Amino acid sequence: MRIAVDAMGGDYAPGVVVEGVANALYEYPEIEIILVGHSGKIAYYLEKYGIASHPRLSVVHAPTVVEMSESSATSIRGKKDSSITVGAKLLKSKEADAFVTPGHTGATLAATKVIVRTLPGVNRPALAASMPAYSGRFLLTDAGANVEVTPMNLAEFAVMGSVYCEFLYGLENPAVGLLSVGGEDSKGNDLTKEAFKLLELAPINFVGNVEGNTVFEGACKVLVADGFTGNVFLKTSEGLANSVKYWLNVIYRKNPVRMIMGLFNKRAFKELKENGSSEAQGGALLLGLNGVCIVGHGSSTPRAVLNAIRLAGECIKFGVNDRIVEKIDRLHKIIDEYEAKKNIAEQDEK
Amino acid sequence: MRIAVDAMGGDYAPGVVVEGVANALYEYPEIEIILVGHSGKIAYYLEKYGIASHPRLSVVHAPTVVEMSESSATSIRGKKDSSITVGAKLLKSKEADAFVTPGHTGATLAATKVIVRTLPGVNRPALAASMPAYSGRFLLTDAGANVEVTPMNLAEFAVMGSVYCEFLYGLENPAVGLLSVGGEDSKGNDLTKEAFKLLELAPINFVGNVEGNTVFEGACKVLVADGFTGNVFLKTSEGLANSVKYWLNVIYRKNPVRMIMGLFNKRAFKELKENGSSEAQGGALLLGLNGVCIVGHGSSTPRAVLNAIRLAGECIKFGVNDRIVEKIDRLHKIIDEYEAKKNIAEQDEK
Repeated sequence: MRIAVDAMGGDYAPGVVVEGVANALYEYPEIEIILVGHSGKIAYYLEKYGIASHPRLSVVHAPTVVEMSESSATSIRGKKDSSITVGAKLLKSKEADAFVTPGHTGATLAATKVIVRTLPGVNRPALAASMPAYSGRFLLTDAGANVEVTPMNLAEFAVMGSVYCEFLYGLENPAVGLLSVGGEDSKGNDLTKEAFKLLELAPINFVGNVEGNTVFEGACKVLVADGFTGNVFLKTSEGLANSVKYWLNVIYRKNPVRMIMGLFNKRAFKELKENGSSEAQGGALLLGLNGVCIVGHGSSTPRAVLNAIRLAGECIKFGVNDRIVEKIDRLHKIIDEYEAKKNIAEQDEK
Repeated sequence: MRIAVDAMGGDYAPGVVVEGVANALYEYPEIEIILVGHSGKIAYYLEKYGIASHPRLSVVHAPTVVEMSESSATSIRGKKDSSITVGAKLLKSKEADAFVTPGHTGATLAATKVIVRTLPGVNRPALAASMPAYSGRFLLTDAGANVEVTPMNLAEFAVMGSVYCEFLYGLENPAVGLLSVGGEDSKGNDLTKEAFKLLELAPINFVGNVEGNTVFEGACKVLVADGFTGNVFLKTSEGLANSVKYWLNVIYRKNPVRMIMGLFNKRAFKELKENGSSEAQGGALLLGLNGVCIVGHGSSTPRAVLNAIRLAGECIKFGVNDRIVEKIDRLHKIIDEYEAKKNIAEQDEK
């Protein structure tokens, strides 16, 4: 199993990435790593973490980097030799079975969409993010890849999310909810109302509309949204979580007694923080891409890099993409049949 | 100043509402209250809180109630004699200067839109919700009144929000942000990209796109969104806040030592909860309505009812609606001029 890893991605590259790769080589003997990045800048860290001449490691030189501040199009229009673009090409040519990057999400999306393309039957790839609920986690899809979508896109996201959720959380036929503004069927905007009808037909366990509060209580295991609303959902959760951290800090600095109490609570607060952490997930799979691509958080730690590599390996082994193709095919057949029947019924009426 | 109050609205009506009204009568000698609701059901509580023959209190009988589980259209199609519909009619006929309800938001919106109508120049009323930031608060508009909007609607929400924010938080020319999926001007969906251009022209302090996380850090004081996205933002914040409460509960019940620590932290956690509480606000103003209407939370306490009545009184005194009319007029003049100039330039080119 050969996994290409973008050594230059993320805020602490390449040191943090190489450290994660070194740990992955040690932990997973079945995995070969292709490090993609500026070979000169990587060399020091390869020595430092003792993997400079590791038999299961190779380095592919990519002279440039798409910086976090640059636009998404940079990966395909400007820097065509960036670590992201080179990584995507390795995935396309099957020299790599998967590509892991803790880098620029937008640039990775743009490059993989153009170079790797989507799976048969899939119109748009979607970003699947794992998020914490009261107990366990749920999968948000699309977390921000597509700001404008059709109802059919949402149906595809739902099917792909359902397959990925089965694999990721080991759940059978997970509950799929549509992010909307009210629990009733009739609530929502034009897009979600149309999507609702398709989701009812789709080969998934559709539980209807779900709201931004009830999803945390466990209303569904897959939350379907367009990339705009999904991204707002993701960022708002992050913002509120950071607010609580900030408020707790203020409250526990109010007076000396509180400060001492705060010290006693450190372990408890650390557990609270762990609940929201994405480190254990490592990254988000780009659902629907014709190849396994995991995008990690820009501030990924070595542990997150290790887990992203593990996740990539598991996605290959489990055959996530084959199952997606199969179920997307079923979705389209069901919808086509439904449309055909509807047309006949309409003609009969006339 | 006569304020109509929906005695039947909210989860604990009419007891909680009457208690809040009794306190308001005591605290604000300049306010007259018109209680709207089932007179038979209210009578007991009027006696209980000692205001049965209060000189500044009158009761208007409304035989039915729109239950929280009923659809929004009930207030205008089904129960035309409900406390919400009767309250809206009092506002329309100017028998009341304001209407306060802790009841059904959707039903109130539907009834007031049809009966009270919007201010001159305003196309759609919007729900303005006050939310907690790291320090201070910010105003979200629209928090859920309009699931489908035009860019021009968003520009009107921004102007109305700016005026209301000046009044509510005592800020001059508050920073107005557009809820989107990236800080850069170019980010967003078709709707926000078009709205962005109008907001740049609008007579407000527009600071550009704002994301769901940075708004809590203080990126803006007025957050503009369509009602669908705004409602997702509101509910997601609520959901995440409840999650933290839940997680803290689990963490502090893990073992006896933790449970004792939890007891010591009670006061601190109460302060944390206060940060997110909407009790002090009392309710959300329906911006752009041709009359002052405050919608409270369904689970309003007597304190929240009191504060909603106070807020209604202040909105009347400050003349929020006059200022909105004035500034909306300026908005439309600016946009019209801009469009005219653009048309001339385009014709010149031909």
